[in-house]
Amino acid sequence: MKDSRRQKQLEQFVQKLGLASEASVDWSLLDLALTHHSISRKENNQKLEFVGDAVVRLLAAEVLLATYPEAPVGELSAVRSILVSDRVLAQFAASYGLQRYLLFVNHSSMNKGGQISLLADTFEAVLGALYLSTQNMALIAPWLTPMLQDKGEKIRRDPALENYKDALQEWTQAEYKILPEYRVQENQQVLEEERFTAEVWLEDRHLATGNGRSKKTAEQAAAKKAFLAVAAG
Amino acid sequence: MKDSRRQKQLEQFVQKLGLASEASVDWSLLDLALTHHSISRKENNQKLEFVGDAVVRLLAAEVLLATYPEAPVGELSAVRSILVSDRVLAQFAASYGLQRYLLFVNHSSMNKGGQISLLADTFEAVLGALYLSTQNMALIAPWLTPMLQDKGEKIRRDPALENYKDALQEWTQAEYKILPEYRVQENQQVLEEERFTAEVWLEDRHLATGNGRSKKTAEQAAAKKAFLAVAAG
Repeated sequence: MKDSRRQKQLEQFVQKLGLASEASVDWSLLDLALTHHSISRKENNQKLEFVGDAVVRLLAAEVLLATYPEAPVGELSAVRSILVSDRVLAQFAASYGLQRYLLFVNHSSMNKGGQISLLADTFEAVLGALYLSTQNMALIAPWLTPMLQDKGEKIRRDPALENYKDALQEWTQAEYKILPEYRVQENQQVLEEERFTAEVWLEDRHLATGNGRSKKTAEQAAAKKAFLAVAAG
Repeated sequence: MKDSRRQKQLEQFVQKLGLASEASVDWSLLDLALTHHSISRKENNQKLEFVGDAVVRLLAAEVLLATYPEAPVGELSAVRSILVSDRVLAQFAASYGLQRYLLFVNHSSMNKGGQISLLADTFEAVLGALYLSTQNMALIAPWLTPMLQDKGEKIRRDPALENYKDALQEWTQAEYKILPEYRVQENQQVLEEERFTAEVWLEDRHLATGNGRSKKTAEQAAAKKAFLAVAAG
């Protein structure tokens, strides 16, 4: 670590996570995890994100299995797909004020989706750095397990809070090893809220139909109906 | 463990993995990992598979990063997607004769694809059981790391051995966060080998075109050209 101010910043972040012992944190890795590729094309957090993406999937699987030993695995897969989505990971990141520790070149033009990705990717990179520091979940499970439990419970009670297309896809993959297909039609003659009609199919089986003012909202509406019917039903 | 013959069988399997210490294996979990849902709808390996799927992704990420520190992350993602595919995991499973330890109701009618899934799923379940035995990779890394390195090197030299559609998708996801789209046309007027023509697109960008005697082979041919051009090029 070159810079003692940066070191202080990283220590402050680790304290925020509430880790009792910081002795085993690899500070160089954590520094890298909090360095965006807009700062350096070579020394940035993209590879740690590649590891961290698998870390959060693994911990989420463990936590869901331990918390809901009786739940069907298709349902746990669906909940996990939402738990590890950019949207949820960005919420976790924001709750620790992660953006304040990230070194990056600010594009004032960045849209909401870009901000969510940035936070989620950085969060995954931090998980990658903490995992590689000890080769286990010792620096992660203590603070992330309760977050995954809380959020998992909310999603389980109402997956509508989140993304039904992801949830449905995770379900059909786990159960049938195939992906749902969407067929969308536009009809200019109807009310704007029903302009698009999406059908979701699983091979030859029509699962559900939904409407919306955009292709995306129509697909989400169809996915929601299908998910509630086949997965949560 | 109810049955001492089964216990012997499990110990024999663990010895095959070449593990120096078996003391930390959770034998009940390993027994469950080697019990297919055709034997019991309740006590089977599906939940361990859910954990194991994340275990192999994580270890593959670690191994690829350590082995190819200079490779672009998009390329490592593409290699990983092939490494964790059913086809490769089934090969790993077969090399340990995993099918001999699996309790399941044999369907003599099972096709090749079904056998590959069965082996790959069981392999993941075994990884889940070994991971949960110690909460780390201690029972897995010693034997799986060299297999991932060998296979990873083969894939890196010639991804043609494996599945280009998966590889391309992993690449576009990692680099652009979008999926490639395939547009296929059938033409009955041409040679059988060129009956189907598939174009692969990334949003508005036409990546490549391929032909084949089926929709699937045409898509693979298009994916191969695109992957070699954008990812490995």
